[in-house]
Amino acid sequence: MNIIEFEPVGRRGKCPENESLLDSARRLDVDIVRLCNGVGVCGRCKVQIITGEVSPISPREKEVLTGKEAERNYRLACLTHPLGNVKVHVPPESLTAPQRTQVEGLELDVPPAPSFQSVSVELAPPTIEKQLADETNLMDALNRAGACARSFDLEALRRMPPLLRAENWRARAAIRNGEVIAIETASTRWCGMAVDIGTTKIAVYLVDMESGKTLASRGLMNPQISYGEDVVSRISSAIRSVENADKLQALLVEALNETIALLCADAGVDRRGVVDAVIVGNTAIHHLFLKLPVSQLGLAPYVPALRSEIDVKARDLGLEIAAGAYVHLLPNIAGYVGADHVAMILGTRLADAAGVTLAIDIGTNTEICLNKRGEMASVSCASGPAFEGAHIKHGMRAAPGAIEHVSITGGRPAVQTIGGEPPAGICGSGLLDAAAQMLLNGVMDSSGKILPHPKVRVREDGMKEFVLAERPGKDDITLSQKDIRELQVAKAAIRLGIRALMEEMGVVKQEIDEVIIAGAFGTFIDVESAIVIGMLPSLERERFRQVGNAAGTGARLALVSLAERLQAAATASRIRYIELAAISEFNQKFAESSYFGA
Amino acid sequence: MNIIEFEPVGRRGKCPENESLLDSARRLDVDIVRLCNGVGVCGRCKVQIITGEVSPISPREKEVLTGKEAERNYRLACLTHPLGNVKVHVPPESLTAPQRTQVEGLELDVPPAPSFQSVSVELAPPTIEKQLADETNLMDALNRAGACARSFDLEALRRMPPLLRAENWRARAAIRNGEVIAIETASTRWCGMAVDIGTTKIAVYLVDMESGKTLASRGLMNPQISYGEDVVSRISSAIRSVENADKLQALLVEALNETIALLCADAGVDRRGVVDAVIVGNTAIHHLFLKLPVSQLGLAPYVPALRSEIDVKARDLGLEIAAGAYVHLLPNIAGYVGADHVAMILGTRLADAAGVTLAIDIGTNTEICLNKRGEMASVSCASGPAFEGAHIKHGMRAAPGAIEHVSITGGRPAVQTIGGEPPAGICGSGLLDAAAQMLLNGVMDSSGKILPHPKVRVREDGMKEFVLAERPGKDDITLSQKDIRELQVAKAAIRLGIRALMEEMGVVKQEIDEVIIAGAFGTFIDVESAIVIGMLPSLERERFRQVGNAAGTGARLALVSLAERLQAAATASRIRYIELAAISEFNQKFAESSYFGA
Repeated sequence: MNIIEFEPVGRRGKCPENESLLDSARRLDVDIVRLCNGVGVCGRCKVQIITGEVSPISPREKEVLTGKEAERNYRLACLTHPLGNVKVHVPPESLTAPQRTQVEGLELDVPPAPSFQSVSVELAPPTIEKQLADETNLMDALNRAGACARSFDLEALRRMPPLLRAENWRARAAIRNGEVIAIETASTRWCGMAVDIGTTKIAVYLVDMESGKTLASRGLMNPQISYGEDVVSRISSAIRSVENADKLQALLVEALNETIALLCADAGVDRRGVVDAVIVGNTAIHHLFLKLPVSQLGLAPYVPALRSEIDVKARDLGLEIAAGAYVHLLPNIAGYVGADHVAMILGTRLADAAGVTLAIDIGTNTEICLNKRGEMASVSCASGPAFEGAHIKHGMRAAPGAIEHVSITGGRPAVQTIGGEPPAGICGSGLLDAAAQMLLNGVMDSSGKILPHPKVRVREDGMKEFVLAERPGKDDITLSQKDIRELQVAKAAIRLGIRALMEEMGVVKQEIDEVIIAGAFGTFIDVESAIVIGMLPSLERERFRQVGNAAGTGARLALVSLAERLQAAATASRIRYIELAAISEFNQKFAESSYFGA
Repeated sequence: MNIIEFEPVGRRGKCPENESLLDSARRLDVDIVRLCNGVGVCGRCKVQIITGEVSPISPREKEVLTGKEAERNYRLACLTHPLGNVKVHVPPESLTAPQRTQVEGLELDVPPAPSFQSVSVELAPPTIEKQLADETNLMDALNRAGACARSFDLEALRRMPPLLRAENWRARAAIRNGEVIAIETASTRWCGMAVDIGTTKIAVYLVDMESGKTLASRGLMNPQISYGEDVVSRISSAIRSVENADKLQALLVEALNETIALLCADAGVDRRGVVDAVIVGNTAIHHLFLKLPVSQLGLAPYVPALRSEIDVKARDLGLEIAAGAYVHLLPNIAGYVGADHVAMILGTRLADAAGVTLAIDIGTNTEICLNKRGEMASVSCASGPAFEGAHIKHGMRAAPGAIEHVSITGGRPAVQTIGGEPPAGICGSGLLDAAAQMLLNGVMDSSGKILPHPKVRVREDGMKEFVLAERPGKDDITLSQKDIRELQVAKAAIRLGIRALMEEMGVVKQEIDEVIIAGAFGTFIDVESAIVIGMLPSLERERFRQVGNAAGTGARLALVSLAERLQAAATASRIRYIELAAISEFNQKFAESSYFGA
């Protein structure tokens, strides 16, 4: 028996030597994708061996894995056996949905350079002969200890006198730009919070500000969704009444406060030690969160109220963290290219890329940035909520029972659901796979028209639909002609965005050295399928990199390092914004982009 | 008929030439004190002739007025007749109570040097080709116009987009330390607010920040009084529960918000243009207003949570003024010598005095500062609420019907009431007069014991009382032995405070060049009476100066000029605090101080 440990899920246990890593994972409740049921066909169960000896690489793995992957010790879990104790990293794309959240992303690689100083002091208690005010007493001690404290946050000040007395005149202070923003016990571990607020989902990270390590993270739904799936409906709602605008802000704040409480409990820290926060989101979300007016975002020329980065007292937003903590919001670029895009660029190091790199953050709204040897431009495209399963008859979010992968073999569709449960619907990655497979297997043509096929039937209303999964006694799960049209619009928007950027900057496809796919959804799509239907440019699979929530990574980088905030501000100023609606022959180009096919 | 104008009350009208200024004042409803009913005896109707010709000075006036007063054109209103149009200044001590509020004080004499820059701009509206964010647009324009704007207050930012559009892209901004704290219409007149919060009364001033002129002022009662007359009971109350502490703060804020609204209406300005505020109060009031913990103020060694000056966002306190305005609170000196004392020192220019000067701010708590050729020390003494009429059987505040002045002629008391109404009770200045007259006329001895006298009677409970005013059909207004004891404690506290300072600094009485009496109450007392009973040192009347609400003046100085704030901070650091309770032989000295007599 060997001890196998799966990261970052953090499960470990004893497993027999003759068991594949895939089976060991299942034994330990780590849900790795097993579309082909562990026979080495689908190639979806890629894992990275971190430490320990495993069986030699098989010929099938050599076919499926790229050279770079093999080099970095990637293996197919179904074809790999342990030869001793092994530590395995399961990349997010190899996990089924219940365990993969929108918080996965690149690890941080910068030395912490936080926005505050931390200073511990021990004070002399005042006496009747030396009636030193607490504040004077503390300030003197801080400055003697090398701090540069000049002013005091009111909330921190309110907290200080009882704390000093309870803690026998010992305390730790956080000082930011000369302002004492928190006074806590001498053993306090200062933390920070990085938040990526997406239109649909929110990722929250609790970070140790001394080490820069992420202590805990959580993903949650954006509760504003009750005011509309897309930002345009939320903007309309906020414009309609002040109450709506208040509510839209309050919903976010409540959700964040709850999540901070959970994360602090997860990590065993006190929320009063959370002294810094970085929050990113698209421009509309950013404005709604700050309760800035949004009318001007909804009308031409669609300008933000605020472009620059801003530091706001957490309490002014209702966030319950350290007494005098500030929240830093990264800069926006334009009305529809926001701080989350800046964070994504930061998190992917796109601005530092040497050649020609395209970075795509796919979501309800998709932002794309092209870096052509240092010259950078971005567009925004309204890809809509189809990838979240909305407006698709059997669509659903990536939850247990959702069809996440589809293949058609011998004319018959095979589906893989999240958690291996009976199919309940289809999520975004399943949709991409299904469309690609339908195209490759002649179930539809490149115009998106569903063709006659044994699995295609005509509904009573005359609409054609392709049967993905039969469910005796229940509605079969199908993709209708209308569903295909929805997907078509989403993929056309992204395709057109990429084309517009390339044309604007004079880049041809083969010049593109790398395509970075960011965002929770982008992490789980099958790139091949996305190429097949023409959503992504047809380039060698090696040139693509799926990085998970890069905006979350960028937010964490900006949290732990002031240098990263400066970098973000500099990058935001440097990016040219291209208004997609203003490109020449928009309608014609949009129509062209809607064709399926690489 | 001549036109007579009375300042600062601001009444003017036609008056016959043969009428005294005192009678003209009465005709115009300006209530000047007339204790002797206008026959030149009491010397209380002093006024200053500002412009115009009046009758030559009479021999009686030469007796009553000091040389300095005569030099500065002071006259007795009852003996002076106009010889043409005349402008008359009525000093606060010559007004009866209903018109004298706690807002009277010295006029400001400093050039405005406000804490913010004011910059007006006109912006180019954004276009689809140039989608400039409002904030970027404004910042660029401000900095082109010579401002130094780097950051933006969130509330100001929220207000900006609709304002810019409504005002056709013209606006005026207030910028403080690089932060845009307000954006208003181009015609906005920036104002400031200076507030002196006393234990009993509050004075609020609305000041034009460009000219430094006071536009309007109002006095009001401190609503915290429902939680106790003195600060000690309010401290106890705040310690008992968080709700009490919240309420004590909320009461002040509500009262201030109402008063600001009234003052803005008085002056015809918008409260959103009130971009700065300076607030002073004693240490307990200062802490209750900031909702700082007060437990440590109530227990030895009685230390403040905060000594230094502080700038706090007005919204963090609930004050409804300009979007991003700050409130500046002057520094405290010790637990019982607060920011109001610093303001008083600023307002009286005590720190600049060349010789030996004593400044006394009489109130429920009395603070005294002695400047001995640049060396400064302060004490605080708990004089209690007797001067406000509390704990005195027939005591009342200075309101219509209150006996404010007393004389005894031929053994019979004569009283002057506020507003000339039938006597309803006795206020602080009346109390001092009564005690002095009782002492001078053998109604009590220097130990404070009431002696046999035709107007002294013995009550059923055996207590002696002196009848001040008979009221047929009603209780007579009397001063009992117990009332005298209350007064005695109050005056002893002040006397001891003065003595402790003089001993500590090695000053003898004749060295004192000037005694400044500040505070609303101090303005209206008869200095002679205070000397007679031994509350104030017996010095020539010329050495005394009654300056009205000097703390209010100091607050206004700090409001209009940053240099004054620096001066206040420097002064506060320089003052030595002497703890009265810690002086040697306290009990013995207190007993000595309680004796009546100069």
